[in-house]
Amino acid sequence: MPEFDYIAWLRSRTPADPRVPVGPGDDCAVLAPSGRPLLVTTDLLTDGTDFILSEVGPRAAGRKAMAVNLSDVAAMAGVPTAAVVAVALPRGGRAVGEELYVGIREVADEFGVAVVGGDTNSWDGALVVAVTLFGEATPRGPVLRSGARPGDWVFVTGPVGGSIRGRHLTPTPRVREALRLHEAADLHAMIDISDGLAADLNHILEESRCGAVLDAAAVPVHADAVELARTTGKPPLAHALGDGEDFELLFTVSAADGERLLREPPVAGLVKVGECVDAGLWLEEGGTRRPLAPAGWVHEL
Amino acid sequence: MPEFDYIAWLRSRTPADPRVPVGPGDDCAVLAPSGRPLLVTTDLLTDGTDFILSEVGPRAAGRKAMAVNLSDVAAMAGVPTAAVVAVALPRGGRAVGEELYVGIREVADEFGVAVVGGDTNSWDGALVVAVTLFGEATPRGPVLRSGARPGDWVFVTGPVGGSIRGRHLTPTPRVREALRLHEAADLHAMIDISDGLAADLNHILEESRCGAVLDAAAVPVHADAVELARTTGKPPLAHALGDGEDFELLFTVSAADGERLLREPPVAGLVKVGECVDAGLWLEEGGTRRPLAPAGWVHEL
Repeated sequence: MPEFDYIAWLRSRTPADPRVPVGPGDDCAVLAPSGRPLLVTTDLLTDGTDFILSEVGPRAAGRKAMAVNLSDVAAMAGVPTAAVVAVALPRGGRAVGEELYVGIREVADEFGVAVVGGDTNSWDGALVVAVTLFGEATPRGPVLRSGARPGDWVFVTGPVGGSIRGRHLTPTPRVREALRLHEAADLHAMIDISDGLAADLNHILEESRCGAVLDAAAVPVHADAVELARTTGKPPLAHALGDGEDFELLFTVSAADGERLLREPPVAGLVKVGECVDAGLWLEEGGTRRPLAPAGWVHEL
Repeated sequence: MPEFDYIAWLRSRTPADPRVPVGPGDDCAVLAPSGRPLLVTTDLLTDGTDFILSEVGPRAAGRKAMAVNLSDVAAMAGVPTAAVVAVALPRGGRAVGEELYVGIREVADEFGVAVVGGDTNSWDGALVVAVTLFGEATPRGPVLRSGARPGDWVFVTGPVGGSIRGRHLTPTPRVREALRLHEAADLHAMIDISDGLAADLNHILEESRCGAVLDAAAVPVHADAVELARTTGKPPLAHALGDGEDFELLFTVSAADGERLLREPPVAGLVKVGECVDAGLWLEEGGTRRPLAPAGWVHEL
């Protein structure tokens, strides 16, 4: 049984504010001490790389900037609390700034995050937005990448691949899912899929010093991967394994916990995609096991 | 007497690391809880606005990026502890990134700050660097802008003006000075001079809902302000009052504490520049008191 209902807490504290009251102009925001370890993550997004401002608009850019940071806190099974936002706006981009903040605030509010400070600049360049997000570990502690063991089962929280078709702009960070999973099972290792399923699984394996076998037939291929495959000529599975910015969670648990998760799934969309082994990264397909390149795809498939 | 020797503590903990050990690739850094309020500040610097990369080089840009954030923590009389750094590098700018981090680390090390995380990107634009800095309030609490009262004495920690001649790139954040002052006196309100002495004093007055009279003869005019005045045609005092990015501290204390600070200065360079009054921002020169524009300079002087 969980010591504390973090889901209820997360819900109840929206939109609570962890700030110690200071003036709006004070040089720093001040956050009350919580007694729990502080999670910190920062992600910087640029126009032309992470979004095309002229196509998606500033609100979508703001939403993505907050969401990708939330995904990092989710990957540690943390409870997000507060954020600061630093922005470089194209000159004359006051409306851009305002819309950007609307997007940031929408996603922040959705997850009970108080935007406690920031720095807004204008310059001759294109839009840059850097969000630094704070969270708290639950009493079970943050879930690291280093705890996977041979025999663990490997899960993802939803279908992957082809996010470039548009989904990469509107990820739903799996904050609540991570907390529910962390309550329901002893998560050995976890990561959010930003580089791609194979590459991110490899990050876990490197930190955990073990290997894994993925079951090709089990990998949940997103409809976007199927669509994308029509134009790229690659198999849909290649996109599911290799494409980035899905922001689903990838985690490992003991076989016993894994069986329990399948029997009584605490979140929707949960799929077992493989098992940890002593070494190597492998793809098993039709009874054949072959090496899987961590960059995202098997050689010469 | 101070409850706790923060100066010694600051010195002893260099270069201690507040991190809870996590893998280098984990999605968040994890900081151990300190039980004290957490100060957070973020400043984003861009090539062409805050520095000219082609003239000063990436190391100086990195030093400034860390220093201006340290100055914000100093303004609250906080003890800086950790930072995360988000960077957008011009494409092919690996050497730029490395030199930038050298500058960031140099200043971070000088002040016992652990760089615990970051996000490095490359893009088609110019260099952008966003530092988010964490600190802890001392047991006396953070010094806000809102505590100035009529009758308070106004101090600065050193000469100001003309920083654009080069000093703005190499500020010495007054972290140690702030802690010494906070031990020696009850600081009512404090700010670092980034917008300019008059403008920043006005920030204090707005938050504190009182006024102040500056003594023109007492304002410590930096030699750079004198030099700059030769080319701008403005009086050196105009630069001392109006120029930004000096990063000296501006603070108020009771008259009794002010007398004590002058008798036994806990830091070098301390100058009384004025006194708080009920309302308005004034410059007193040769027995005449006239309104001082918070933007930096008296009308029609």
